Amino acid sequence: MNIYEMLNEIRSKQPVIHHITNWVTIFNCAQAVKSIGASPVMAHATQEAAEMTSIASALVLNIGTLTKELIESMLISTKTANEKKIPVVLDACGAGASTLRNSSCQKLITERKIDIVKGNASEIASVAGHNVKTKGVDSSEVEHSLSDIALNLSNKLSSVVVITGKSDYVAANGKVSVIDNGTELMGRVVGTGCIAASIIGCFAGVGRSDLFTASTAALSVWGIAGEKASVKSDGAGSFILNIFDVLSSLSEDDIVKNKKISFM
Amino acid sequence: MNIYEMLNEIRSKQPVIHHITNWVTIFNCAQAVKSIGASPVMAHATQEAAEMTSIASALVLNIGTLTKELIESMLISTKTANEKKIPVVLDACGAGASTLRNSSCQKLITERKIDIVKGNASEIASVAGHNVKTKGVDSSEVEHSLSDIALNLSNKLSSVVVITGKSDYVAANGKVSVIDNGTELMGRVVGTGCIAASIIGCFAGVGRSDLFTASTAALSVWGIAGEKASVKSDGAGSFILNIFDVLSSLSEDDIVKNKKISFM
Amino acid sequence: MNIYEMLNEIRSKQPVIHHITNWVTIFNCAQAVKSIGASPVMAHATQEAAEMTSIASALVLNIGTLTKELIESMLISTKTANEKKIPVVLDACGAGASTLRNSSCQKLITERKIDIVKGNASEIASVAGHNVKTKGVDSSEVEHSLSDIALNLSNKLSSVVVITGKSDYVAANGKVSVIDNGTELMGRVVGTGCIAASIIGCFAGVGRSDLFTASTAALSVWGIAGEKASVKSDGAGSFILNIFDVLSSLSEDDIVKNKKISFM
Repeated sequence: MNIYEMLNEIRSKQPVIHHITNWVTIFNCAQAVKSIGASPVMAHATQEAAEMTSIASALVLNIGTLTKELIESMLISTKTANEKKIPVVLDACGAGASTLRNSSCQKLITERKIDIVKGNASEIASVAGHNVKTKGVDSSEVEHSLSDIALNLSNKLSSVVVITGKSDYVAANGKVSVIDNGTELMGRVVGTGCIAASIIGCFAGVGRSDLFTASTAALSVWGIAGEKASVKSDGAGSFILNIFDVLSSLSEDDIVKNKKISFM
Repeated sequence: MNIYEMLNEIRSKQPVIHHITNWVTIFNCAQAVKSIGASPVMAHATQEAAEMTSIASALVLNIGTLTKELIESMLISTKTANEKKIPVVLDACGAGASTLRNSSCQKLITERKIDIVKGNASEIASVAGHNVKTKGVDSSEVEHSLSDIALNLSNKLSSVVVITGKSDYVAANGKVSVIDNGTELMGRVVGTGCIAASIIGCFAGVGRSDLFTASTAALSVWGIAGEKASVKSDGAGSFILNIFDVLSSLSEDDIVKNKKISFM
Repeated sequence: MNIYEMLNEIRSKQPVIHHITNWVTIFNCAQAVKSIGASPVMAHATQEAAEMTSIASALVLNIGTLTKELIESMLISTKTANEKKIPVVLDACGAGASTLRNSSCQKLITERKIDIVKGNASEIASVAGHNVKTKGVDSSEVEHSLSDIALNLSNKLSSVVVITGKSDYVAANGKVSVIDNGTELMGRVVGTGCIAASIIGCFAGVGRSDLFTASTAALSVWGIAGEKASVKSDGAGSFILNIFDVLSSLSEDDIVKNKKISFM
C-alpha cells in the first residue's frame, strides 16, 4: 500500500469531492479537503444534486443535521453516483440518536449502494441493527467486538465499513485493517469524525478500484496529520488550524515513518 | 457560589446540550461546549426535535438565522423540555431587528416556559416591549437602567433574565448579580454572545435547581476565559482559537482569583 | 483614490452589511466584515428579508449553497435594496456548475439591478453567457481576455463587474482597474472569494456614489491584508486567523506602501 503515491495523486488530480453534509462542521470539512489538495463542493439543493454529483469523483454524505430535504438530496445524488460508479461515503453521524437518523440511514443503505459506511462504534452498531443507547453524537459501549460488527455489516451490504475510535477498523470482503494513528486531541475537536469521512472521500476519489485500501490509507493519513498537529497545539482551538497547515504539507517521510496499519 | 465545583461537574458528567441555533456561529458554539467539557448536539429538524431534546440536560435556542421551520422546531423542543423539566435558554439574538424575530420571541415566551432569557441591552429591551431601534445585531441605547429592565422582565416571566454587555446582569426572584469579567476583544468576535448562551446552557445542565446561580457562574467563567485568551491574542482571529484552548484548561486558581461578581 | 480614508469611514460609521450567503463560509464572511470595522447581518428568511435589507448600507448575495428559498429571499431583498438605492453585490459563486445557479443568476441580473457582479474568470464568463466548463467552484480556462469579458458584461448590465484571480479586474463605464495585491495562500483557503465580496460590500456601503472606486479599493485592501497575513502563516489554517487579526489593524502605511492598482 503506497499511501504517499495516493496522496500525490490527490494533489495532482485535485478530484472534486461533493458533500451533502451538516451545518456545524461544513467549513472544516471543505477546508480539510482543500488542504489535502482536492476540490470541495458543498451543495445541498435537490435541484442541483444530480448535476453536482455528476462532476464529482466522490460523494460524501453526513447526517449530522439532517432534514427531509437533505435526505431527498442525498437520495438523488446517490442515484447519480451509483449510475456513474462514483464512490459514496456515508458518515452515519449521530445514528442511533433519533428515528429520523435511523430510518434515513436504512433508506440510504437499502435503496441505494453506499460504498463506504463510516461511524464510531455506537453509530455503526446502530446501522447494523444492534441495540445501543447513544449519548448525542458521542460513542457508547457496544457489546460485540468492533471488528466483528464491521465485518458483519460489510458482508451484509457488500460495502466497506469503517469504525473510528481509539483504533480505527476498516472491513471489506472478509478482511479487516486496523489503523492506530491519531491523537487524543482529535476527540476534543468538534467534527474530526466528519473530516475523516471527507478525507476518505478524497482517497476514494482517486482510488475507486480498491476502496478498502483507499479508506485505510485515508485514516492513516488523517491520523498522522493529527499527531503532527498536536505537537504544536495548546488545545482544541490551535489544533483545528494546525491540522489544516499540516494536511497541506505532509511529506513522504511523515507517512512512511509514522503509519501504523495492521491487518486482522 | 462554588463556581469551580460546577465547572468540574460539567467536566465529569458531560451533559448533552441540545441547540437549535443559527448557521453563522454554530461551529463555535459546539466547540465551546465541547471545550468546556460538555457534549454538544445541534439538530434542527422538526422530525427529531423532541427526541433530541429528551436526551439533553439543557436546550439552547438562538434566533440569529431564524426561519419558520426553526421556530416550529423550537416550539416542539421546548414543549418536550418543559415537560421533562429540562432548562431552556433563549438567546434573543437580533430581537428588535425584524417582526419575525419579535413575534417568534413572544410566541416562545408566552406559549412555552423559557427558563433563561438572554440578550444584550437592546435585545432584552425589545423582548420586554420597550421601544428600541436596533442596528443589526449590535446593541442600542436604552432608556431604562439595565438591572431594572432585567428585573421587570424576570418578574413578568418568572424566569432568569440575562443582559450581557460591558457588565453582565442576571436577574431572578428580585435578585440581581453583576458580572464584570470579560474583555473588549470579545466584542470584536462574531458570536461571543451566542457562545455565552451555550455556556449558560452547560451550567444550567448541571445546576437546574438554581438557574440564577448557574447563569451567574457561567458568565463569570466565560468572561474569565476571555480575559485569559486575550492576553495571548493579536486580534479577533487568534482570540477565537485561544479561547477554546483556555476553556478546556481553566483551573480553580483561574476562577477564584479572577471572578468579579457582585450583587445588587 | 484615498483608500485609507474609505477604510476609516467604514471603521467610524460601522455600516450594516446584510448577507444572504452560503453555509460554508458564513462565519468567515461575518468575522471579516466585523474585523474590518463594519457590522455584519446574515439573515436568510423570506419573512425578514425586506426588513433586514432596509436597515443595511449594502447587500451581499452569494449563491454557493443556493436553494429555492434562498433565491426567493434574494429577490425580495434585492427589490428593497433597489428601491432604497442600497448597493447590491452578487458573488456568482460556482456559476456555470449547475442549471440552478445559472438560471438564478440570470433571474437576479435581469429582474433586479445588481450593482456589482463578482466572480472568478469562469464564473463571470458563465454569467456573461460564454460557454465554459466549470470544475466545481474553481476557475477554468476562458477564451476571451478577462478585461474584455468584464467590460462587455459591465456594459450590458450597466453594473460594476469584478473578476478575481491572480490579478483582479474591476470594470465599469468603459474603465478597467487592475489590482495586483494578494497572495497565493488565499487560493488555498476556502471562502477567500466569498470574503472578498463581503469586503466589497463594506466599501460599497460607505462609497455608493462611486462603486467602481469602492470595489477597486476593497480588493486592494483585501489583497494587502492577505499579503500581510501570509508572512506570519504556516499554511491555510493559521492564515485564516491571521487575516482577521490583520484586517482590524491595517494602517495607512500598510495601504499606501503596498497598494498595486493600475488602470487600463
